[in-house]
Amino acid sequence: MKTNLVAECLRKRKIIMKEDLDIERISQLTSSLKDVEVVKSFFNDYNKGNIGIAQINTTAGDIKGNAQIIIDYIKYAENIGLDLLVFPAKTLVGSGLDDVVIRYPVLVDECEFYLDKISKIVKNTKVVLGFVKNIAGKVQNMTAIIYQGKVENIFNNSKIGYSEINGIKYSFFIGEDYLWNEDFHWDEHSDIIINCVNSESRTQKEEKKHRFLSKVAKKLQTPIVYVNQVGANDCISYDGASRVYDETGELISRLQSFAEDFAVVNPLNKIGKLQPLPSGIEPEYKIQTSFTLDYEPDLERTYKTLVQGIRDYFRKTGFKRAVLGLSGGLDSTICAVLLADALGAKNVLGVSMPSKLTSIESKNDAADLAKNLGIIFIQTPIKSMYETINGSLQGLFKEVETEWDCRYKTSFTSDNIQARSRAMLLWGVSNEFGSCLPIATSDKSESYMGYATINGDMSGGFAPIADVTKTKLFALARWMNKNRAVKNVIPENIIQKPPGAELAIDPKTGKTLIAEDALMPYEFMDEIIWRIENKQEKYDEMLNAQFLYEKKVHVSCEQKKEWLDKFFRRMSTAHYKWSILPPAILVDAHSINKSDYAQPITSSHINYKGEFSK
Amino acid sequence: MKTNLVAECLRKRKIIMKEDLDIERISQLTSSLKDVEVVKSFFNDYNKGNIGIAQINTTAGDIKGNAQIIIDYIKYAENIGLDLLVFPAKTLVGSGLDDVVIRYPVLVDECEFYLDKISKIVKNTKVVLGFVKNIAGKVQNMTAIIYQGKVENIFNNSKIGYSEINGIKYSFFIGEDYLWNEDFHWDEHSDIIINCVNSESRTQKEEKKHRFLSKVAKKLQTPIVYVNQVGANDCISYDGASRVYDETGELISRLQSFAEDFAVVNPLNKIGKLQPLPSGIEPEYKIQTSFTLDYEPDLERTYKTLVQGIRDYFRKTGFKRAVLGLSGGLDSTICAVLLADALGAKNVLGVSMPSKLTSIESKNDAADLAKNLGIIFIQTPIKSMYETINGSLQGLFKEVETEWDCRYKTSFTSDNIQARSRAMLLWGVSNEFGSCLPIATSDKSESYMGYATINGDMSGGFAPIADVTKTKLFALARWMNKNRAVKNVIPENIIQKPPGAELAIDPKTGKTLIAEDALMPYEFMDEIIWRIENKQEKYDEMLNAQFLYEKKVHVSCEQKKEWLDKFFRRMSTAHYKWSILPPAILVDAHSINKSDYAQPITSSHINYKGEFSK
Repeated sequence: MKTNLVAECLRKRKIIMKEDLDIERISQLTSSLKDVEVVKSFFNDYNKGNIGIAQINTTAGDIKGNAQIIIDYIKYAENIGLDLLVFPAKTLVGSGLDDVVIRYPVLVDECEFYLDKISKIVKNTKVVLGFVKNIAGKVQNMTAIIYQGKVENIFNNSKIGYSEINGIKYSFFIGEDYLWNEDFHWDEHSDIIINCVNSESRTQKEEKKHRFLSKVAKKLQTPIVYVNQVGANDCISYDGASRVYDETGELISRLQSFAEDFAVVNPLNKIGKLQPLPSGIEPEYKIQTSFTLDYEPDLERTYKTLVQGIRDYFRKTGFKRAVLGLSGGLDSTICAVLLADALGAKNVLGVSMPSKLTSIESKNDAADLAKNLGIIFIQTPIKSMYETINGSLQGLFKEVETEWDCRYKTSFTSDNIQARSRAMLLWGVSNEFGSCLPIATSDKSESYMGYATINGDMSGGFAPIADVTKTKLFALARWMNKNRAVKNVIPENIIQKPPGAELAIDPKTGKTLIAEDALMPYEFMDEIIWRIENKQEKYDEMLNAQFLYEKKVHVSCEQKKEWLDKFFRRMSTAHYKWSILPPAILVDAHSINKSDYAQPITSSHINYKGEFSK
Repeated sequence: MKTNLVAECLRKRKIIMKEDLDIERISQLTSSLKDVEVVKSFFNDYNKGNIGIAQINTTAGDIKGNAQIIIDYIKYAENIGLDLLVFPAKTLVGSGLDDVVIRYPVLVDECEFYLDKISKIVKNTKVVLGFVKNIAGKVQNMTAIIYQGKVENIFNNSKIGYSEINGIKYSFFIGEDYLWNEDFHWDEHSDIIINCVNSESRTQKEEKKHRFLSKVAKKLQTPIVYVNQVGANDCISYDGASRVYDETGELISRLQSFAEDFAVVNPLNKIGKLQPLPSGIEPEYKIQTSFTLDYEPDLERTYKTLVQGIRDYFRKTGFKRAVLGLSGGLDSTICAVLLADALGAKNVLGVSMPSKLTSIESKNDAADLAKNLGIIFIQTPIKSMYETINGSLQGLFKEVETEWDCRYKTSFTSDNIQARSRAMLLWGVSNEFGSCLPIATSDKSESYMGYATINGDMSGGFAPIADVTKTKLFALARWMNKNRAVKNVIPENIIQKPPGAELAIDPKTGKTLIAEDALMPYEFMDEIIWRIENKQEKYDEMLNAQFLYEKKVHVSCEQKKEWLDKFFRRMSTAHYKWSILPPAILVDAHSINKSDYAQPITSSHINYKGEFSK
């Protein structure tokens, strides 16, 4: 019986791995590259040392799909007659899967299968390609050097690989651990160093990278070819910008940022193409050692990191449409613009969901923005939902308070009903319409403060701006108004008015509560965040430091202590919210995203004063 | 101005670290230990080699609190006149903080401060204690050997420490990496090996640990003293059960599981106390190499892991009360029992929130359970909320469908409104009443299938059973009915009836949809999960394996393929839900919890067939 079943299953099941790669296809990708004959003639003078840099966007785990892209480039490189073709690190399987290959050994088998197929089409161009392999029971990240139909050599990514082509000696370093290890030492003797990486786009990293690579090339008197990927996986956006330094440390070639790109270079003869650097990642950009509100040099990079992050998250997960609440405030505004740019305006639905506290101004701002952007805009009031839910809750609370003597009776519960009613509508749209993802619009400043509602504005399938501080969002709004193809889509009023969630009335003013009154000035708050993430300062160090805000406004010592105390008190109770925040695109050098920073919630009472306080 | 401000601040701020440890206190903890004189007389014959094992529950980051506990034990050990007092690994700062100490250098300063205070009270008992230290700009986990008022020696946790006391040579190994490294080699020569760990309670681990330590002791002909912590941090529950093996590999002493404990042992003279082993962690317990529904040996461990996990999560975060929905189904029932045992029945509020689909049977089951347990029970129907929300949504949908041609019109949206209305009520209670946390009741089988609603039953501050499969929950229900002090609190009807969320009508039967009809038999589903996590099997291996379920019921090849396909299809789309699941207590050897297993959502289309399919 068992044997028959097996036989039956074996007969019926498809052959799992079939060779359905299209070896002959002329891909859009390669046909759009520079004409082969032109490139060939350009490199005519140099019969050796010509290297192709394939800066591609792979999908982690899609080995067949990645293999197809790789093959397209190999064929192109063979046509030009290059010595060497290099890909970013971990290209075949994709980066970000170190935990995963252990759970899915089928990925390792697939890697072996497609590496073999790829090898068969390699002729006279040596190809350097990352893959995974099971070695003595342990799955390891390896790099293969492929030549004339077979794998000539493999090496572990923690080791240095070597190969010789036409009398030129190459050494291969994988990864960018050197950036975080001051003692790193490239002790090797070769004519050209190839460095294959998966390098994330994060604030201030470009400067560090440029200085280091340039310094090493000069010191070793050896050119360095640096090959990075583009594209995004969940929180991580890779910025590309592959480049070549000559043996004097001069940058002689640079590929685009945030776009697939290809270049042929000959570092020994200082031949390459030098792409103009986007302003955001100028090598001249200085490492920020003090907090400044001048985000200008970093805004282009931030914008591109976010748009690429959204676009790839949707494309790689299979989503097409986004739905978000449009409050007329800054956070949802920025999200709407980024979504429109990443997905196309007609795939973005902005829903205005006013309550009785929503001002006419806010409603108009939201409508104006949607019109300017060309996204879909619908208005649905939440009044009846709020009233019904509140009615049910008040009945429940009356019964609970007969048992528990700890009722707050603040406006807090009521504030949250509004935010949750809105999320209820957005998730409803996501459930009812195909391939539609609701967006969480929380920003980084508010995440630190826990100033966002669980199952409310914190809720969604993706949180694009949760690693961008409020002051940077203001700067980004102005930058987008100035630099997008269509200028000034964000109404000036949205940038001018003070942020506030319009969930509660301020008893002092009788108007809706402004966030800075409930919290503290955003400029001050964002500087605390900067000092935590970049300087690891303690409470008393911050107390004694002069904040940027203090240069403009006198802040008494009592006031400063009050703000710092409030910040750290709120931060410790916000901690559990970080663990359930949807994936956020990382842009800053450090973040509170769970993929970046892990702290037990049970230790959230740690504080910066050196006391554990509950 | 700046200088004045600094002076003013310095004058006013409290001295951050003050020596407010109570050195003289007679702690509850130590006074409840065996009488000092009795212990002394018992060890009278042995004037050397007496070792104290302090199996304590520390709070990660609460260095002052941990120091106070440590000092209590040191004073006790000095009174008895022990040679050596050992603590679990990383005791002073607490485990789980490796990411955190980098962000909070104040923790490193605190460690230094309190290590100094502790050292000063150490006289003639050597004390071995884990702490963190900044060495050449890098924060490292270290272990200190303290003697006669000062730190005699420190060593990095990745190295072996040595010390001699009364002519006996000790070596110190920190951590349990050896369990996962088959080539691990204890190459040292000492009279006694001390192994300080932070060892998580996970299925099948005890067996592995016992075999390994016993084998090594025998092979090296050296006793091993194994010191583990108890207590929990978020997802991790540590099981204690510190023990001593003599030089023949025999277990001669064992401390309690899941409770603070202390023992004096003299391994060279084979003296210790041997705690009876709870059934769940018998050394005889065999490693499970095939799926079995006989969970019996593991249920006590699972129960204790969960109760300790809940209790410590609440205690260490400062929460006191829990609110959860009581549907009359298995998941919420198990959660209610565990919460009552961890927090006390009067701190648990079960809310029955029937819809028009909720049967009278379910309502009665929930009420009976609450009565049996003695928890607070309130009924709040969701009919009016459902109708209002659905009304708002239908209006919104009409407008959306004029723009997007992708409306599903299934019952899916409506099902979710019910689950989300319930979560709305629970979070409302949490917002309105002090120190009250809402509980997510999702189980592991349903998490794999994505059979839980975002912002609905998946939502809460803590998810106690999200790493326990459904079949194990059934076994746990029976175990608890038999083994808790109060027997049979779970109504038999809850265990008997087939699980179903009562969110939708099955068009085939006209009754509410049963989960196994929507998905597949739980026994089959849980075996797939077991094969993924423990065997890393591929699709075709599973197709050809005989499942336990197939021994009882004939399953056609088509049916089996249908279930496997459904499982992996659902699993890949459930993936993004795992990233926003609240912290869950880990019990199985492997899990999908984000603290245990990280896979980019953009790679969730990986499947077990070796194809990437969207």
